[in-house]
Amino acid sequence: MTSPSGDTGLLAPGWAGSAAAAATGDQAYLRALLDAEAALTRAQAAVGLAPAEAATAVTEAAGGTFDAVSLAGRARAGGNPVIPLVADLTKAVGDAYGPYVHRGATSQDILDTATMLVASRTLGLVVADLGRTEQALARLAAEHRDTAMPGRTLTQHAVPTTFGLKAAGWRSLVLDARDRVRAVRESLPAQLGGAAGTLAAFGAYGAGDPAGLPEAYARELGLRAPDLPWHTLRTPVGDLAGCLAFAAGALGKLAVDVLTLSRTEIAEVVEGSGGGSSAMPHKSNPVRSTLIASAARRAPQLAATLYGAMAAEDERPAGAWHAEWEPLRDLLRLVGGAARDAAELAEGLRVRPGAMREHLDLTHGLIVSERLSAELAPVLGRARAKELLTRLASEGRPLAEAPELADADLDPTHYTGSAGALTDRALERR
Amino acid sequence: MTSPSGDTGLLAPGWAGSAAAAATGDQAYLRALLDAEAALTRAQAAVGLAPAEAATAVTEAAGGTFDAVSLAGRARAGGNPVIPLVADLTKAVGDAYGPYVHRGATSQDILDTATMLVASRTLGLVVADLGRTEQALARLAAEHRDTAMPGRTLTQHAVPTTFGLKAAGWRSLVLDARDRVRAVRESLPAQLGGAAGTLAAFGAYGAGDPAGLPEAYARELGLRAPDLPWHTLRTPVGDLAGCLAFAAGALGKLAVDVLTLSRTEIAEVVEGSGGGSSAMPHKSNPVRSTLIASAARRAPQLAATLYGAMAAEDERPAGAWHAEWEPLRDLLRLVGGAARDAAELAEGLRVRPGAMREHLDLTHGLIVSERLSAELAPVLGRARAKELLTRLASEGRPLAEAPELADADLDPTHYTGSAGALTDRALERR
Amino acid sequence: MTSPSGDTGLLAPGWAGSAAAAATGDQAYLRALLDAEAALTRAQAAVGLAPAEAATAVTEAAGGTFDAVSLAGRARAGGNPVIPLVADLTKAVGDAYGPYVHRGATSQDILDTATMLVASRTLGLVVADLGRTEQALARLAAEHRDTAMPGRTLTQHAVPTTFGLKAAGWRSLVLDARDRVRAVRESLPAQLGGAAGTLAAFGAYGAGDPAGLPEAYARELGLRAPDLPWHTLRTPVGDLAGCLAFAAGALGKLAVDVLTLSRTEIAEVVEGSGGGSSAMPHKSNPVRSTLIASAARRAPQLAATLYGAMAAEDERPAGAWHAEWEPLRDLLRLVGGAARDAAELAEGLRVRPGAMREHLDLTHGLIVSERLSAELAPVLGRARAKELLTRLASEGRPLAEAPELADADLDPTHYTGSAGALTDRALERR
Amino acid sequence: MTSPSGDTGLLAPGWAGSAAAAATGDQAYLRALLDAEAALTRAQAAVGLAPAEAATAVTEAAGGTFDAVSLAGRARAGGNPVIPLVADLTKAVGDAYGPYVHRGATSQDILDTATMLVASRTLGLVVADLGRTEQALARLAAEHRDTAMPGRTLTQHAVPTTFGLKAAGWRSLVLDARDRVRAVRESLPAQLGGAAGTLAAFGAYGAGDPAGLPEAYARELGLRAPDLPWHTLRTPVGDLAGCLAFAAGALGKLAVDVLTLSRTEIAEVVEGSGGGSSAMPHKSNPVRSTLIASAARRAPQLAATLYGAMAAEDERPAGAWHAEWEPLRDLLRLVGGAARDAAELAEGLRVRPGAMREHLDLTHGLIVSERLSAELAPVLGRARAKELLTRLASEGRPLAEAPELADADLDPTHYTGSAGALTDRALERR
Repeated sequence: MTSPSGDTGLLAPGWAGSAAAAATGDQAYLRALLDAEAALTRAQAAVGLAPAEAATAVTEAAGGTFDAVSLAGRARAGGNPVIPLVADLTKAVGDAYGPYVHRGATSQDILDTATMLVASRTLGLVVADLGRTEQALARLAAEHRDTAMPGRTLTQHAVPTTFGLKAAGWRSLVLDARDRVRAVRESLPAQLGGAAGTLAAFGAYGAGDPAGLPEAYARELGLRAPDLPWHTLRTPVGDLAGCLAFAAGALGKLAVDVLTLSRTEIAEVVEGSGGGSSAMPHKSNPVRSTLIASAARRAPQLAATLYGAMAAEDERPAGAWHAEWEPLRDLLRLVGGAARDAAELAEGLRVRPGAMREHLDLTHGLIVSERLSAELAPVLGRARAKELLTRLASEGRPLAEAPELADADLDPTHYTGSAGALTDRALERR
Repeated sequence: MTSPSGDTGLLAPGWAGSAAAAATGDQAYLRALLDAEAALTRAQAAVGLAPAEAATAVTEAAGGTFDAVSLAGRARAGGNPVIPLVADLTKAVGDAYGPYVHRGATSQDILDTATMLVASRTLGLVVADLGRTEQALARLAAEHRDTAMPGRTLTQHAVPTTFGLKAAGWRSLVLDARDRVRAVRESLPAQLGGAAGTLAAFGAYGAGDPAGLPEAYARELGLRAPDLPWHTLRTPVGDLAGCLAFAAGALGKLAVDVLTLSRTEIAEVVEGSGGGSSAMPHKSNPVRSTLIASAARRAPQLAATLYGAMAAEDERPAGAWHAEWEPLRDLLRLVGGAARDAAELAEGLRVRPGAMREHLDLTHGLIVSERLSAELAPVLGRARAKELLTRLASEGRPLAEAPELADADLDPTHYTGSAGALTDRALERR
Repeated sequence: MTSPSGDTGLLAPGWAGSAAAAATGDQAYLRALLDAEAALTRAQAAVGLAPAEAATAVTEAAGGTFDAVSLAGRARAGGNPVIPLVADLTKAVGDAYGPYVHRGATSQDILDTATMLVASRTLGLVVADLGRTEQALARLAAEHRDTAMPGRTLTQHAVPTTFGLKAAGWRSLVLDARDRVRAVRESLPAQLGGAAGTLAAFGAYGAGDPAGLPEAYARELGLRAPDLPWHTLRTPVGDLAGCLAFAAGALGKLAVDVLTLSRTEIAEVVEGSGGGSSAMPHKSNPVRSTLIASAARRAPQLAATLYGAMAAEDERPAGAWHAEWEPLRDLLRLVGGAARDAAELAEGLRVRPGAMREHLDLTHGLIVSERLSAELAPVLGRARAKELLTRLASEGRPLAEAPELADADLDPTHYTGSAGALTDRALERR
Repeated sequence: MTSPSGDTGLLAPGWAGSAAAAATGDQAYLRALLDAEAALTRAQAAVGLAPAEAATAVTEAAGGTFDAVSLAGRARAGGNPVIPLVADLTKAVGDAYGPYVHRGATSQDILDTATMLVASRTLGLVVADLGRTEQALARLAAEHRDTAMPGRTLTQHAVPTTFGLKAAGWRSLVLDARDRVRAVRESLPAQLGGAAGTLAAFGAYGAGDPAGLPEAYARELGLRAPDLPWHTLRTPVGDLAGCLAFAAGALGKLAVDVLTLSRTEIAEVVEGSGGGSSAMPHKSNPVRSTLIASAARRAPQLAATLYGAMAAEDERPAGAWHAEWEPLRDLLRLVGGAARDAAELAEGLRVRPGAMREHLDLTHGLIVSERLSAELAPVLGRARAKELLTRLASEGRPLAEAPELADADLDPTHYTGSAGALTDRALERR
């Protein structure tokens, strides 16, 4: 503890140690900032604004080591880390080609671009883990296509459903999340505009048509070329906020269901590897679901901060932009960690059809009262049918003992409606 | 004031009286709920689950008058307004076909579907007003393609830009918002699942394959047929949250810029019809921008509530669903009102090129110091060039008087970089 | 449906029809606005700035009927409803004393003051309902001081607790909420500053020392006299946000616990009057808890909007203030409705000690494994004790059958620790 | 970059390097966790539950070095960092007294207590920096008691005010924040309840009356003794959320005003040490205000997450608690950093009375039109007075040239109302 080592996830079991954590740490941002600077010089070389040697020199120097702690400290004066990084990088490049570092750009060009690189890399991980998750859920849905269980509404047993339909529903949400994340990932643009978004400095440095430079820059980075500089046109940030909040919500649905179904009294599913307790050896906590659920509680408000930052004044704003940095990183991490946990959860989930079957009888037949209503109505009339069922319900006796229902099919596993057909159809989606 | 008339927008100048207000009021929801009930019976008739006469009878009765105040009061017992509405509608339909009202459905089927109808209608208005807005902004951008003005970053003059590029940027965000709103609008599904999303009751009432019913139902309503019942798979709600928060942010950007440029000291733009003050006859407040900006401050948190509600447990949840209703309506209204205000703002905005030109001289030439840096660096060396400009800046004298800059082009209107080309390119987008 | 009657709570079973709804409706705000205008003229009369007859005339006219729909429509031009209201009130007062209406004030003086009146009245209702709630919870805690039940952590049975301690904990949170709401209520100030908060116009109209006027004004209204005009010093709004979000959270805790304990599989408590279902006669939904839980999901984000509005620029801001109106009203209503529901919930809650006792045996003794760990450790050593219990837990046999535990006290009702003492102490608080 | 060093503030110029950053880093939390463990054993020794030697041994071992990276990684299994920390600490203490480590406690006891220690330390820093800020603002207010400047409302000049009143208002908000932060700081409790909040394990380990243990524990830590275990009674967290969001809003008001007044066109104040730009030597950005403003944009949503987490089910919740950790730390840091920046901002702010005086004339006298309205009304009648002023305003001529106003006092510095008296009164507050 003599040399403070920064934050390494002590308060974040949801994402600590994940690939998303590595992809979003200060070191990853620093790497992306350097990648952006190097790409800028290379792009300038590509369009004849800088000698090829400058591109080589900057790229080489950018591959070196820079001191993130020092940069963070010096970022305070100007309010962003690019200013000191440009100084350090320029020095590392040396006198000959140092002047080509960052030439014509503004800090925000580099930080926004680096953020898009970090986002793109992290969303790639998210898409992969959502993919693992949906595949595991598809297997569960297929396997339990006909496993009947209580459908629950407002905490109470309603009518039967199947675990297959439940898993297919989870998967459907995960696919929706994957599609949205993937689409946003493919849309992420590089940023290049210069001091006020006019690209003017590139012209001053000799570019005949600086408007072509952003394309060359984006090509170097594997990002989309921007239509316009977007210093205060925050479409990419709003889109990231939306797809990440959506993904957190989608995984949150899976998590709260598993938490409910894991309750000691219900125990219809069990997390593959529950977390233990030192003092209570019997406990097996649904830790994966807990951590996903906690991410789902945080993501919406982080997204709200990002949406709020879209109202950014002027050519570059005083506060709105700065307010994006940490929340966007947090969102990426949270969803990255939650997707990892969801994949493990889905792959390891143990289903207990026996418990589901038992619970279908907990209400002594009332779980099919809707069916009885439907079937008795034509015989007894709607009002008398309802009266009968309400009376039987209040008596608390098993419906099977009621003489009026002697001929009725009270088997709850026979009343799952189109659950199977819906599951089949949902599983056709890829 | 003897008969309380409900809330009619006294606290909401941003949306009161707008088409979006009418499309989202209690009466509009009531109408949509009745539309959903009528469509359900018609759909059942279409697939042979109900006689055609029932469809006619329910549709006719649903066209009648129902008491929203009474419904709101009676909604409390069961926690939603559909339960009492079904009772009233059944009574209105009469003994013969009353039993066909709401048959096989759950309250959430009707309320979710009605919400989608309301959303679809309101988003239609939003798309139209965003269209008016972008067209007016396109005109402004074209007209002021070459109107130079100060580019401002972190509140300070940076380098020149053009009003054309600024307006083109606003428009680009508005188009992004329009595209997202339109796409979500086209995706909105009807809801039909019955008590726990298995469609079982429709089978009990005789449907051979109830899985086809939702399609017939959606067709009646002009909504998309759902892949699965989405009682707790809240993709449509998450998507609405996202596109509406995005739109609010996009319009918010326009608003905060107009507010800044309208300041007494800046006055580069003036709202067409400013709001007055009784005591200060000279005041012309930028009221449209103010109201849009206030919507942009609220929308993100409303969206956050909706994203948070995606983590909805079970087949129908106890709280998450109920937490959606008012925030979603509020979002629709706020964005509907803001889009109306934005259209009026853009159509009426008065631009004052003279003020822009004057302000370019406020820094006595320093607004082109970036250009001078670029041009002097090859001559004097980078360090000496910077030193010179820093000294001149600190002296506060006009740069034109500095002998070292005798040959420099200090005209700020000559330093707008690619603003024109970027504007042209942006205006090609439709 | 020919004359649209405004919103009357169709989407808001949580607050529709409550006293808080009546206290926060457009009509209540209109009444408060008129109260504020009348008090202003009376205060001016009290300090000699207006004739007593003007005070009488304005007070009388303010008691009349004004058209909220028309005001809402006309509010749009200037962005707030006070401007048209002053016009209507001035006309109603007539030529002689009309000029004394609103004299020297700014719209925000009146709207802020009216908001404080509405808040004060609504918080009074909240305090009363929190009082009912805590009393009912105190009775439950006392009655069930020794009713053992499973303590649950991360959804799993942990060690026993008592329902008394649980109810005492709920009450403790409710008391914390009540104290915070009451303190804020007593701090609410009137607003009076004039156009830019200097009170200058009152001087222009003849006040020797206008700084005394706010005190006279506050006295007329039963509000606290402000230290400074607070047009952009939003302490009262921040404090309201905080105490209301706190109260929603406190009631939310009660609600989520009741929802959990109400589950079909748990059923340790039952809401006094559950909501029914038309198709499923057996269902008794925990509707009060559901509605409270939904309020608790919304309140934090509404409070966030209010906290965000504290960063209000200038002497009166362009957007931040306008963004407060509806969210503050929504918060007041939501918490008002939730407090009503909580009082009913607490007063009607049915406790089922039998179910609690049964569930203590669900883990076949493992619920006291912590105690066994503690007691066996000195005998067997810590490691062997843990090993033994882990083995027994994994075998799934009742612990009572394990020969090693022949002498152990496995009665879970004997392992409730200080639950009774803690309950007693907590109930001493008033 | 070979050994990843964690996050050290690269994206956080607002708090990197501050005392609040050091007080809230992973190392600070680790230290607080160890302090909590050591205090627990000492408290047990104090009430006779452990030998004094155990207390000494644990305290000594807790002073050693532990590996935060390893702990973070191992935290994942059980979902919190206390479980692996207890293992490491037990090992460090050794066989003899190792069993006394963490005895009877639950992870949440330690993590909640550590969080309160971290919060208490950080709030101490916040109170100190708010104190520096208010003192600097008091000096500014006193010095500029009579410095007239334009009062601005909805972005437009309204009537004159003084910079003294403005600074006094800022200070008043800062004092409100300080009072709230201080009160919450003094209320922060230790946490001790054991597995389900009954303190039962301490009894199992021999405590006659475990209910006294929390008090001894709190005493060791310098925290308040809790009334009840508060694992799911989150009053302290709600209170922290409220006071920190309030403080962020209060400082945000200061920041947005400075940002506005710093604009190139206004320049009535200048930050003492503005941030520069590499390419534009003239730029002096208001960086302190920018960073404070960005904190004020984020804090409300972080507080919302904490308020939302109050609805925590059961004896210890699955997700709500975990969702608190990072947002609470973020809030502490953000406000800690913002308070540091605010102190520097206030202490270094340069005021430019000359610019203020000039701007009072920008509207050619219209800034006193309210006064003229008041003074002309008795002479000309209200309607004709207004008509005259509106006409003069629309003509754009200086009012001084209007023959009708020949005798009027048009000096804006004479129309500051009670600004001076209000300032004096506000400065009396300590």
